[in-house]
Amino acid sequence: MSTTGFVTVPVALGERSYEIRIGSGLMTGVGADAKALGARAATVVTDAHVGPLYLDSVRASLEAAGLAASDIVLPPGESTKSFRHLEEVSNALLAAKIERGDLVIALGGGVIGDLAGFAAAILRRGVRAIQIPTSLLAQVDSSVGGKTGINTKAGKNLIGAFHQPSLVLADTDVLDTLSPREFRAGYAEVVKYGLIDDLSFFSWLEKNWTEVFAGGEARTKAIATSCTSKASIVARDEFETGDRALLNLGHTFAHALEAAVAYDGTRLVHGEAVAIGLALAFEFSARLGLTSEDDADRVRDHLKAVGLPTRIQDIPGEVGDAAHLLDLMGQDKKVSGGRLTFILARGIGRSFIASDIPPQNVLGFLSEKLA
Amino acid sequence: MSTTGFVTVPVALGERSYEIRIGSGLMTGVGADAKALGARAATVVTDAHVGPLYLDSVRASLEAAGLAASDIVLPPGESTKSFRHLEEVSNALLAAKIERGDLVIALGGGVIGDLAGFAAAILRRGVRAIQIPTSLLAQVDSSVGGKTGINTKAGKNLIGAFHQPSLVLADTDVLDTLSPREFRAGYAEVVKYGLIDDLSFFSWLEKNWTEVFAGGEARTKAIATSCTSKASIVARDEFETGDRALLNLGHTFAHALEAAVAYDGTRLVHGEAVAIGLALAFEFSARLGLTSEDDADRVRDHLKAVGLPTRIQDIPGEVGDAAHLLDLMGQDKKVSGGRLTFILARGIGRSFIASDIPPQNVLGFLSEKLA
Repeated sequence: MSTTGFVTVPVALGERSYEIRIGSGLMTGVGADAKALGARAATVVTDAHVGPLYLDSVRASLEAAGLAASDIVLPPGESTKSFRHLEEVSNALLAAKIERGDLVIALGGGVIGDLAGFAAAILRRGVRAIQIPTSLLAQVDSSVGGKTGINTKAGKNLIGAFHQPSLVLADTDVLDTLSPREFRAGYAEVVKYGLIDDLSFFSWLEKNWTEVFAGGEARTKAIATSCTSKASIVARDEFETGDRALLNLGHTFAHALEAAVAYDGTRLVHGEAVAIGLALAFEFSARLGLTSEDDADRVRDHLKAVGLPTRIQDIPGEVGDAAHLLDLMGQDKKVSGGRLTFILARGIGRSFIASDIPPQNVLGFLSEKLA
Repeated sequence: MSTTGFVTVPVALGERSYEIRIGSGLMTGVGADAKALGARAATVVTDAHVGPLYLDSVRASLEAAGLAASDIVLPPGESTKSFRHLEEVSNALLAAKIERGDLVIALGGGVIGDLAGFAAAILRRGVRAIQIPTSLLAQVDSSVGGKTGINTKAGKNLIGAFHQPSLVLADTDVLDTLSPREFRAGYAEVVKYGLIDDLSFFSWLEKNWTEVFAGGEARTKAIATSCTSKASIVARDEFETGDRALLNLGHTFAHALEAAVAYDGTRLVHGEAVAIGLALAFEFSARLGLTSEDDADRVRDHLKAVGLPTRIQDIPGEVGDAAHLLDLMGQDKKVSGGRLTFILARGIGRSFIASDIPPQNVLGFLSEKLA
């Protein structure tokens, strides 16, 4: 791998601005990037799936640039986003004497990005981080925008911080090693950006998704368009007091479904939950008379075409009844004053924040879907 | 207790600005304050020393104002500032369904303030907090300025966040129940503000300290002057990239000494460590030819006069040798590039940041002090 041309997406957040670079071979240039940021030391946080593939070359790049490199390799999977592993990473960073000018490097998917980013946020009340997302989902979503966090028994990402990275390196070479299931799961988040506010992107995906899955230019375009869309929304509302909630399209349903399977990735991974959530958000919008049944069908059809689940029944095993799922939504961060906030749509590319949905409406809708 | 007149110290931090109120009986008005902030629910975090004294009246005040009140009572002592208790508090806040518009209320000394403030900072990526500091130290220091955190085996406060409270209620009635040792320990931080940049305040303390210890107007003045001083420094440098480091006068030594006794409060409480640290900072400054021996003597004499320790040998038991103490300083957050940052002084009220102290100089000084 060597660094060739890459696309740059700027994230404009004042003094917290940073760049997302998307392209082939970026990972092996991380040492020079870290040095350019003025760091003397860096700890790479990764997991036992990703570490064996890329850790040696990332460490070699850091060492070649003269940095003191160290690493911590965690178990793979959602259950790593826990207080226990947060403590473990924190202690490793302290043992490596990572100081305020130094760097935490998150090398992995969304789990590693969220956990390592959170550890960076709270180490010495904040040190810098470089994100090297190694899944499609992390490249288009979790490495962009500075949300970090861990899970608790009450729900996902309920404990965390806003902490912008100093640089994101989305190395597209790594996507070639993903399983089809992992790639598809990430693709659900790509579709989301079209559904939020970009009908033409959604239409382009409907026509070109096989090329996006195949790699090359179409894939880079899909990633860059997704990152640009997210960066634009985050720049408008860094701390989620308004428009940023649009990024949660499909996610209130998704979080409840993930909680219902106890974050068991063999049954349901995050992107699959999002796919079902997107389909449900459009069906719920149609049921409320906000959008047409045709639009809801079109969303479901595209997700199904690429092989993603779109119905609660697509999840293997039991997820509980409508009341149980509603209760799991009640612990979502987007609850306000007992009413539920959903992102609904007046059409594809016309999503909006509906902040006053009575729980009974959701209960009725879910009961129908589970019938 | 009833709310009578109180002094207000504003902390000017843009949209994170807040008020410190200092006076008698403020605690029983917390319900109205919480309601004025728009909260629907509040969880009181306290410890087993403070809880039995004040928890009932704080809860009653919240409930009378129509808030859903809950609480969590933790073990007293520095060891409560741990990942384990952070997780416990986080789970309690989630169980109480504290949402983004709600409140965490820290009712206790510095340990509770730091832990509960940190838990508020990371709950749903940030909910608001009211600090009700119940020790002199917490009233003049740890409840002002938004530093929150926990300890790890590598050192004190190495994991944490900047999170400004929405209101601080420094109820002076609570100081009447403090032990003389606790009050003295807090007084060390009061002295610090004179030493940093206010010779006239230090001179006033030399003359009036017995009245400050007795309570009443002199005590309120000492607290308000301390809070105003800290608020002014924090307003200049919220995230400690510059002047805020002045507040660490005496603290690099103090943190090492506390680590050396493994945070055993029976041997050394934080304010006592600060007293020794202040004396050492002036002696080290004198040794480097920056200030006079007379100034160093004057600082030590005043601290001794009120009954505070001023020498490492005043700590009961062993603390290890100079190299060990230096090593403990190396994990301080204020390390940068292998050099040590100390706050030194060119005289009383003329402190400055010395960011390039060679570790050997400190080693020589400490060896001499321990001889």
